[in-house]
Order: sequence, then C-alpha cells, then structure tokens
Amino acid sequence: MPGGGRIQHAALARKVVPADVAAAMIGPGATVGMSGFTGAGYPKEVPLALARRIAEANASGAHFKINVWTGASTAPELDGALASADGIELRLPYQSDPVSREKINSGQMEYIDVHLSHVAQMAWMGFLGHLDVALVEVSGITADGDLVPSSSVGNNKTWIDQADSVILEVNSWQSSDLDGMHDIYYGTALPPNRRPIPLVRPGDRIGEPHLRCPPDKVVAVVETDSPDRNTGFSPPDESSRRIAGHLIEFFEHEVARGRLPHGLLPIQSGVGNVANAALAELAQSRFENLAAYTEVIQDGMLSLLKTGAFSVASATAFSLSSDAVSEFNDNVRDYRDKIVLRPQEISNHPELVRRLGVLAMNGAIEVDIYGNVNSTHLMGSRIQNGIGGSGDFARNAYISFFVTPSTAKGGAISSIVPMVSHVDHTEHDVHVIVTEQGLADLRGLAPRRRARLLIDKCAHPDYRPLLEDYFERALSGAFGRQTPHLLDEALSWHARYVQTGSMVPRR
Amino acid sequence: MPGGGRIQHAALARKVVPADVAAAMIGPGATVGMSGFTGAGYPKEVPLALARRIAEANASGAHFKINVWTGASTAPELDGALASADGIELRLPYQSDPVSREKINSGQMEYIDVHLSHVAQMAWMGFLGHLDVALVEVSGITADGDLVPSSSVGNNKTWIDQADSVILEVNSWQSSDLDGMHDIYYGTALPPNRRPIPLVRPGDRIGEPHLRCPPDKVVAVVETDSPDRNTGFSPPDESSRRIAGHLIEFFEHEVARGRLPHGLLPIQSGVGNVANAALAELAQSRFENLAAYTEVIQDGMLSLLKTGAFSVASATAFSLSSDAVSEFNDNVRDYRDKIVLRPQEISNHPELVRRLGVLAMNGAIEVDIYGNVNSTHLMGSRIQNGIGGSGDFARNAYISFFVTPSTAKGGAISSIVPMVSHVDHTEHDVHVIVTEQGLADLRGLAPRRRARLLIDKCAHPDYRPLLEDYFERALSGAFGRQTPHLLDEALSWHARYVQTGSMVPRR
Repeated sequence: MPGGGRIQHAALARKVVPADVAAAMIGPGATVGMSGFTGAGYPKEVPLALARRIAEANASGAHFKINVWTGASTAPELDGALASADGIELRLPYQSDPVSREKINSGQMEYIDVHLSHVAQMAWMGFLGHLDVALVEVSGITADGDLVPSSSVGNNKTWIDQADSVILEVNSWQSSDLDGMHDIYYGTALPPNRRPIPLVRPGDRIGEPHLRCPPDKVVAVVETDSPDRNTGFSPPDESSRRIAGHLIEFFEHEVARGRLPHGLLPIQSGVGNVANAALAELAQSRFENLAAYTEVIQDGMLSLLKTGAFSVASATAFSLSSDAVSEFNDNVRDYRDKIVLRPQEISNHPELVRRLGVLAMNGAIEVDIYGNVNSTHLMGSRIQNGIGGSGDFARNAYISFFVTPSTAKGGAISSIVPMVSHVDHTEHDVHVIVTEQGLADLRGLAPRRRARLLIDKCAHPDYRPLLEDYFERALSGAFGRQTPHLLDEALSWHARYVQTGSMVPRR
Repeated sequence: MPGGGRIQHAALARKVVPADVAAAMIGPGATVGMSGFTGAGYPKEVPLALARRIAEANASGAHFKINVWTGASTAPELDGALASADGIELRLPYQSDPVSREKINSGQMEYIDVHLSHVAQMAWMGFLGHLDVALVEVSGITADGDLVPSSSVGNNKTWIDQADSVILEVNSWQSSDLDGMHDIYYGTALPPNRRPIPLVRPGDRIGEPHLRCPPDKVVAVVETDSPDRNTGFSPPDESSRRIAGHLIEFFEHEVARGRLPHGLLPIQSGVGNVANAALAELAQSRFENLAAYTEVIQDGMLSLLKTGAFSVASATAFSLSSDAVSEFNDNVRDYRDKIVLRPQEISNHPELVRRLGVLAMNGAIEVDIYGNVNSTHLMGSRIQNGIGGSGDFARNAYISFFVTPSTAKGGAISSIVPMVSHVDHTEHDVHVIVTEQGLADLRGLAPRRRARLLIDKCAHPDYRPLLEDYFERALSGAFGRQTPHLLDEALSWHARYVQTGSMVPRR
C-alpha cells in the first residue's frame, strides 16, 4: 500500500472498532459469509469474540447459533471456537475441523457438503437463503475503498456482494506485497445473462486485483496482526513416494504414447500429504515448465515455482506450513508474476477445468472394485471433511486420478472395498486409481475388467484374496453381470469394521 | 438437395455398392463408430448385412465380433441384430435394446456406460483405442462431397474424423428439407488448444450445416430408403400427469419468488413417457416463448414448437413416434428455424449447460433418502439402459430435477429406498425429486432434513412407515449422524426383492 497504513480510505478508517464491538453486530440466527480457505485468509478475531459472546449467552440458557458459510476449511480460531461454543446451526460448504466434525457426527450441527464451484452461484440464486453479514479478512483497503484480498479469495466477492452488511478484518500480518497477485473476475452473472469466461491459459488475468465493496455497506473494520494457522506437512513417507512414483511413470508413458504433451497439461492437486509428496517427486522428474490450475498452493508447489519446474500456478488460496509461509512472505514479489489467486467459482469452474484439460489428482477415502470413489464418509455415515473441489475437477478433467494408501488404521481398513459405503465420484468420472501398490488405468474398461485390474494393481496383498473371492462369487451369484454385487455382503466389510475394529474376518 | 438425386458428388456416386459388399469391409475385431441416437439416424442396412455375415461365420465356429460405438441407443436393425448374432464384443456409450441388455447382464457382452458429452473427447484423446470404420447415415451428399446429416447428429463428426475409413448410408426416406437444420461445430480441439465455445442462447448457430468428409476416406456408399424405428409414447397416465403437475407448480412458485425468470430458463427433458407428459402439461400452462436446450426432441416438444409455447429447441436427435414423424417430414420447412441439431458434445457440453442455466429434468430408477440417484442399475448389478446425458445436465444445471413414479412392478418396488444400490448422481448434484406423491426441494438442506422431506413428500404411503422406521433407527444406531445408515440393512430392500420378488417384508 502506498503511504503507510493498511486502511487508506478515510471513512472506513473511522469505522475501526475492537473485535467484540464488531462481533456484537452479529445476532442469533444470523447467516454469516466468512472468508477462509484451507486455513488461509480467514477472519482471526471477530469469530473468537463472537464465540465468547455465544458461549456466555448459551451458558445462561439462550439458544444463540448462527449459520456459517465460508470458502472451505478455516482454523481453530473460527470453526473450532464457534463449534466449541455450540454456536453453529448450519455449516457449509466444507470443513475439516475436529470439533466441528464431532458436533456434526453426533447430530448437533447441520452440514451441507457442496461442490466448491457451486457455492457462489447457489448463493446468488437464492437457493441457500438470505445472507446477513459478510465477515472478510483483507490485507488492506485502498484510498478508493477497494479491498486488497489476503491469502485466500474463496467466496469473498460473493459474500460482499450478497450480504446486507460487511465486517472487515484488516490483517497487517499478511504481506502488503500480495497486492497485485489476485484476479477478481466480475463477469459472472445469473442466466440468461452468462457469457463465456475469457480464460484460455492457467495464468491469464481476466479480472481486477481488488474486491469491490461500497464503503456504506461496511459496518465495522477490525485491525488484526495474526498469522494464518496453516498446518505443516509430514515429510513424504514411503507410501506417498511410491504413489508419486507411479504417477510420474504414468505421465511419462502417456507422453511417450502421444496422449499428453511434453509439458503435460495444467495440474490440479488436492490438499494433503500425498498430493504434496507427488509434487516433490515432480521436482525430481524431467518435466519442466509445467502449470498448475488448482485450488490451493501448498509447500511443494511453492518450491516448484521457485526452481522453475512450474512456470505458473492459478489457485484460490495458499495452504503453507509455517516455514514455507515465512519464506513466502519475505519474497512475495518474486512470486507475484507466477501466482494468480482467483475466486473459487473461477479456480474450480467446470467450463475452465474442461477447457484447460486439467490433470486432476485427488485423495480418496475408499474406492470400490468398479471404480466408484468415496471422498467424504467413514463407514457410510460419519463425515470426515467434505467433497471440496474434487468433483469440480474430476468430472471435467482430461484425466482424473484418485490416490490413497491401500490400507488405513494399520491395515484394519482396506481402501479397496467391494462396494463403497458412500459415493462422491461415480464410475463415470474416475479414470485412474493409484495406491502404493500400483496404478490401475480404468479408461476404456467395462466394469468387470475394472474390477480385475483394481484388485490386481491397487489392493493390498492382505486384502487381495478377499476381494477376488467376493468378485468371483458375485460373478456367479449376482442379479446381473454388468456390475456384479452380492447385496448381503457388499457392505459387510464396513459393518465388520464397526463391530470388530477391523475389516479382516475373524477365523 | 438441388438437382434431384441424393448423391451429388460424382466420385462418391461411383462408390455405391449393395449393403453386403459394404458389410464385407468390416472384419473381425474391428471397432466401428456408427451413427444413431435414440432410434434416429442410425444405419439401416449395413448392420443387418453385417449381422448375417457374423451369424454365418460364428455358426461355422469362427469368433467374429466387433466393437460398436454410437451416439446413444439405436434400433433392432442395429443393436438387436448384431447382439442376436453374438457379434458385439464391446458396446459404448449407451444402449436400450432388449437383446443387448440380456447379453450384457448375462456377461456375454461388455458395456461401458459413459457421459454422452465425454465420448467424443475420449475418442479424440485415444483413451478408447483405435477407431477403424465410421458407418454413418446421412440424408444426402453435396456436390462438394460434404454430408447432409439425417435425423440425428450424435458423434458422427468425431467418427468421420477419427476413423481410418468411412461407409455412408444415404437414406432417401429422410426428408431432404432437413438440410440447413444442423449446426456442426468444428471449433473443438484437444487441450491446450481449446477456446471458449461461442454459444450464449439455445438457438445460436455456431457451426456449419454439413459434415466435412474427405471423399477419399469413403470406401463405400449404400443407398437406403428406410424409416427410423422410433417407438411411440404411451398417452400420459395419471402418475405422469401428477408428476408434471408438481413440476409446473414448482416453476410457478420459483417465478413468484424471483428465482426463475418469467420465461423460465432453457429446459432439458430426458427421454421417456414422464418427460413427454411433462411437456404436455407445459403446453397447458401459462408459460410461453420457452426454449429447450436438450438431447432429444420428442413428440411433446414438436407440438410445443408448433403452438409457439416453445420458440426454439436445440438437441442432437429426434425421438418421434410414427405419427409425429409423418407430420414432421411433411412440414420440415416450418420447423427449420425453430430447431437446431448439434453434435452431442455440444448439445450436452458442461460449459454450455452451466452457462445457459438449464432446468434439467431426468428420470431416476431409484432415489435414496439422502438424495442420491440411481439411473442405471436394477438391484445394484443389472444394467437397464445407461446414464446417457443425465449427468452432463444434472451436474451443471441451474436446477436438477429427477422424476420417477414412487413405486414400480405394481408396488413390489419402492423408488425411494434407504440406500440406492448404484449411484449415478450423488447427493451433491441433486436438487429436486418428484414422484406422483409430491415434490421434495432438497436445495440448501443437510442430509437428515433431506431424508425427512423425501420420505414425507415423495415416498408411496405403503413404504413411508418402513422408511421412517429405517431412518429413526439409523439416527440412533449409525456410525455417524451426518448420513445415518445401518450397514446391515441399507441394501436389504433390494436383497429382499431379489429373494422374494417384493421389497415389502413378509410378516
């Protein structure tokens, strides 16, 4: 920001208040659209102040809850604090907070798990109800009253446009050099007024660097100086490295067969340790001058941008470890031409994912022998996090990959099962499955061939005979042989886990 | 066609041969891309001649099978004849033929069930293997050697472009006035060379009226004079009329709430009796000047175009009864400005479905209490037809509707079940469910609320107490309460049907 302070607009500077004063503007039953995506760019102080107020009210017998909409996951100061205070009635579109997860799975909190590219349009369409307040972290306010976004964009544009009033947190911990990195596209509309989105390369800038916000709409500004609470990544383990190795080998094979260009195609990589490890392996490979069209920039991507293996990355948020974020904040200028942060309706837009031909790599909780993927639920009922952007990318990808270690819980759970207990990605949307055991390329295969290949390439050896046994018996005993299943047994592995703590049958 | 004959190109006129000579050009193991979409525009004579040849060869101990790719379903002269001769190794992307269905479900034929908008790009990418022959019905050949499509476009452009050689059937039964109704878009490409598709209204013409085909690539031309074998529609029954009534009431409600414009948004309507009935009800409603952006033009749509209730319809094929096709063929000129037939990659393209904000209405086989939809499989294993374009439209729709009578087989099957036995459309993609019992608007509802509403509004009264009982017990007994399921019971209704012929428990 030129000229010093983070708040360059005089009228907005006069609206600065302490966090508890701003929090008092949010009443029981309010629906609040908050910033935040994978632990980046969420409001740091107003939610904490609000959680204290809610806890006090509820302790004295009131029923004080709000509805919370965000970009995606946030952090303990937001989701954790509000959930601990029993302050959330309804949460959408994604969360990964342990306290919230427990409240949701015990039935005390409602949760709608939405494709991340759909959220903004659903809010615009009025399908989610009325939005009362937007509570958005920014890194600065210009003299014109425009907002400089911080470390995530998410749905901030939509919340500011749609809410009755806006509360801003101006966080001076965020680097002021972020200014210019964002690209806020104001060309979306409701049908019948939609037009083609003019983006044809991952690094194209099609919008504006700042968020528009009528100053009159801002009811409070809170100054903060707080770090994003991004969690670190585990160093890649043997399993992640093997998964990444299978992926690189596959890319090389596809390039050799002429089915992928030498510079590959824009890469989307889900959040987590396996995805981060895959990026680390890409750094070791012969590929260079790659591009990312993805949701989130993790540590691995940052180093690839630094080495030049990647020339550009488009995303809607960062998700960096503390070490990486320090390095980044000290060198934002070096990255500014290589990174574009967009609203999540653009970073994940089906039109753009399809046009660019994204290579989509996402994690799975479990995969069944016919290639259906469960990304969200444990044992069919208990939600883990949510679908996030995996559906936006997988459905429209050039090639859709799902990756998972072949077992979980020390071998008590097989990630390859007869039938998944919840479906987030159907057999129609899944091209390649990768575990540390190997890679199954399901493209162009009918269901029975998929089953044989998945069992052979991806299942853990301890579970392979059990899967083969199920499949062979289903072949003769099923009601039809397009997708042979034994209805009495299809979910028995999950039932056994719930009963005994292991999918392995007792003998 | 000016000047009389259907084949205006001299060199191609010299390639005219009888059907059996053309069929002899297709050898064992060949992959053949055939025209045809919902019983319209499929080749009429070469497949029959080929089926005879295959049957003779197989009777003498040979193993003569081919792989058949099409637009969608065809007719007995194609799918039925080739399947009866055991002549199909692999079929994609859709079929609805009873003989094929039996061969697939007995494990004698492989079948890949693909989103219809994905087929062309998968063929271009090389993910489905090599395409040897294109076998395409046209209604004429111009003096320049361009091809005038017939009553469907489907994947014909892609088959002609991708195959080593082309066999044409020129069908003089098709009206020569079809010329000018088609819009073949040649702007698609593989990434990284894709550009925005410049279509912003359902009736926009963005391509050319004819298919390009290098004359040298054509190895045979067969002249035919055979009708499309479209099946008729049953007159709307009480159940269909009630479903349609709920839909119209919902549209009126959404218009009143300002969530839909007065002229609605472009309508997509799946193939079948319920969809046809819904169109008939629209004709009785106050809506006018509507538009369709859909796959198939059925009888109901044709009359709406005639009355002016619809001003334009975009599709990839017709699916008309014999009566409707006679009327249509006599009056093609009157419809030519109101109908655009496009390649199915454009009629179903996610970019365009999302941009236009399509109201997508598709049939379901069953729906579970959390809003997951099964469109393809009976009792989890036996395929009925396929997903068709329902996923292309539902995922990207402004509002996605799934419609089904609440029971099947005289009440022995409930269409609302605890857990669907196969998932084609996940909870993330389903907005509204309609049965003759009522309409459940699931938008903005977390799973437990969806369950209560679906049971209350859509389930048949005979099954409602059973569903309520399951849900209440799942609420207390499930492993988690986000999506409460009892793993031992979730598929028990289907198992009971397979064992006893009814989902109703014996007492």
